[in-house]
Amino acid sequence: MTAAARHGTTWLGLDPAHPFGIHTLPYGSFTTQDAPARRVGVAIGDQVLDLTAAAGALLPGDAALFAAGTLDPLLAAGPDTWARVRAAVTDWLGDERHRTAVEPLLRPAGSVDLHLPFTVADYVDFYASEHHATALGRMFRPDGDPLTPNWKHLPIGYHGRAGTVVPSGTPVVRPTGQRRTPEGNVVLAASARLDIEAEVGFVVGTPSTPGRPVPLADAGRHLFGVCLVNDWSARDIQAWEYVPLGPFLGKSFATSVSPWVVPLAALGHARTAPPPRDPRPLPYLDDTADPAAEPWGLDLTLRVTLNGHPVSAPPFAAMYWTAAQQLAHLTVNGASLRTGDLLASGTVSGPGPGERGSLIELTANGGSPLTLPDGSTRGFLEDGDEVVITADAPGPGGTRIGLGEVRGRIAPAVSSPS
Amino acid sequence: MTAAARHGTTWLGLDPAHPFGIHTLPYGSFTTQDAPARRVGVAIGDQVLDLTAAAGALLPGDAALFAAGTLDPLLAAGPDTWARVRAAVTDWLGDERHRTAVEPLLRPAGSVDLHLPFTVADYVDFYASEHHATALGRMFRPDGDPLTPNWKHLPIGYHGRAGTVVPSGTPVVRPTGQRRTPEGNVVLAASARLDIEAEVGFVVGTPSTPGRPVPLADAGRHLFGVCLVNDWSARDIQAWEYVPLGPFLGKSFATSVSPWVVPLAALGHARTAPPPRDPRPLPYLDDTADPAAEPWGLDLTLRVTLNGHPVSAPPFAAMYWTAAQQLAHLTVNGASLRTGDLLASGTVSGPGPGERGSLIELTANGGSPLTLPDGSTRGFLEDGDEVVITADAPGPGGTRIGLGEVRGRIAPAVSSPS
Repeated sequence: MTAAARHGTTWLGLDPAHPFGIHTLPYGSFTTQDAPARRVGVAIGDQVLDLTAAAGALLPGDAALFAAGTLDPLLAAGPDTWARVRAAVTDWLGDERHRTAVEPLLRPAGSVDLHLPFTVADYVDFYASEHHATALGRMFRPDGDPLTPNWKHLPIGYHGRAGTVVPSGTPVVRPTGQRRTPEGNVVLAASARLDIEAEVGFVVGTPSTPGRPVPLADAGRHLFGVCLVNDWSARDIQAWEYVPLGPFLGKSFATSVSPWVVPLAALGHARTAPPPRDPRPLPYLDDTADPAAEPWGLDLTLRVTLNGHPVSAPPFAAMYWTAAQQLAHLTVNGASLRTGDLLASGTVSGPGPGERGSLIELTANGGSPLTLPDGSTRGFLEDGDEVVITADAPGPGGTRIGLGEVRGRIAPAVSSPS
Repeated sequence: MTAAARHGTTWLGLDPAHPFGIHTLPYGSFTTQDAPARRVGVAIGDQVLDLTAAAGALLPGDAALFAAGTLDPLLAAGPDTWARVRAAVTDWLGDERHRTAVEPLLRPAGSVDLHLPFTVADYVDFYASEHHATALGRMFRPDGDPLTPNWKHLPIGYHGRAGTVVPSGTPVVRPTGQRRTPEGNVVLAASARLDIEAEVGFVVGTPSTPGRPVPLADAGRHLFGVCLVNDWSARDIQAWEYVPLGPFLGKSFATSVSPWVVPLAALGHARTAPPPRDPRPLPYLDDTADPAAEPWGLDLTLRVTLNGHPVSAPPFAAMYWTAAQQLAHLTVNGASLRTGDLLASGTVSGPGPGERGSLIELTANGGSPLTLPDGSTRGFLEDGDEVVITADAPGPGGTRIGLGEVRGRIAPAVSSPS
């Protein structure tokens, strides 16, 4: 890496406060109107570097990784390749000498269409915020302990529907489903309690061997990067269906992800110790056993807007369970990882009232609706509502590392089948 | 189709009672020791027709469907293609005139290695046997109703781990996981209550459109065929983890499937009316509304052996919810289907004591162990135990349609991480 790149300068003349600066360099998959074949891109400022085109000239030994136009081959290639490609891109964009070769390969961000950046293999959704789980437990099980007895012993999770993970911007059709009315009637109707869940997703790169658990210390060899996730949830459908086998149609209609995957290599300055755990978890989940290990807490600040109005700023650093613990738990029974497995954190909620990552928390289950600047109120989402989740994290030298955004607008329900 | 094929004769001189006769013709994916590239095969008697090789000469317009050696392109091609290919294969194997061309393309079944026949997209496991759900409800919730209030209103299901679906014969490593001891201690240990679940899997061919529910009447356009499924279950891991978000590590270590996918076209004689439902389900699930519609109950008889000893004969015709209802429910919220989606029925259990598809039922939760011919007893599975599930169904003219088998042997647990 050249001195220029190491010091975070670039010949692009970027505002140093730009969330997609030289220290971020997220990967995505794009097309342009005149070139419909998918290409891998790297976001830099308000431009996109065409990595599929650039690699042929600048990284010829690795060009095959980008030919298909999705991140799948890069993800599968493992940490040495991830580091080599990131160093090369940092050098191209940081060192004035590459300007002539690289500048023609930049596209205005506004001119590209962004797609699902990788093929989702299995999608697992966790439940790792103590504040969120406690708040929901109080609502759904008012007579018992808010947390189930297992909650502090293991990172609870379940498999979601990989086939309905969609990229940011895809309209979200209000789901129809069974629910039980307060009078006890079972009806098929459009969900009346459509909610968001603001989450962070961890993307698996290197697969693991069947039958071989992935210890905490190996998480960084398997996890490539992070994206933002909106795990849309129909609370009325979910409430009726979820006992005893868990959420199904209340979640499976759509899960939106941000188009840019930020490599974990960009989040070194965001590493932070997770909250203390009591009781101390079993050794395979105990991340305090090795004091020299890099912590897996991440100081990301999420921001949720509804129709442009800020409604919440959930702090990811408050999450009880880390992605490394989730990976260790997911594989402790011998289950293997595939490239493209997506591990979502579960709703990110902090302790404060403006730090909750779902409307069911922000509105006390709809009982205390939010008031928007136009005077309208929201317990849950209405047709036409648009939710945007963004996030950033501390970077080197006071910079910020942006995670981009995941955006979705609610479309009216399709009339249900007869 | 020629008269010979139509009448179920074949130049192969098969025993008419063979479960892989001319009326079955299941599809699989195989290799041979001298040819490691995957090929699509059709089982006929104790031989395998190399369809990848045959199609080039006999079905040239469709040869591309078989070039990759998995069923994925055939599944995606839809019902007209399924019918055309099945008619052609029936003709080749039924009409003496094709003998010279086809005979060289037959391999002894014992000489081929069988693989996962298709790429599993999303794996959904249902819970469709009233007898099974009632038995488990009595064990796990002895103080309440055995069935949850939603059970007779909707086919309960959840997403499983697609990445750990393995073909028959793959060793099943005993999973390690968290459980709570009777004394209330939380420990990490090899599962001591490892069980089977004998199920039938329905394989999705034609994808569906996002946002568009698949009505009952369209199920046959999307469902290609059936396989056998053993949904291995660690009851102790499951019991500790499953509240509130459902089964996870208790199931995700392995799910075994049979290598031969029997097309629904082979199961016309097995169609039977499902049991009466009370209460009558909502219209989108009401398969009694059109009396002229072909019923989706299937008269399959499963047989479970443990170390060669028959332990159960679960009747699939007793299932409360059909695959068509499961498909209608799965998509009623707008969730789309992908080629390769696998819908497993849930444990197949009939009302009789010898008709239960899991050991937890057959042994009263381990309290009444089975005695094997060698005098040993089994509450749950021991290392080295081998479970084989087979099934067949009525075919035309008194023949039987075989579903082949799904086989798995328990390997000892891997020592757990420190």
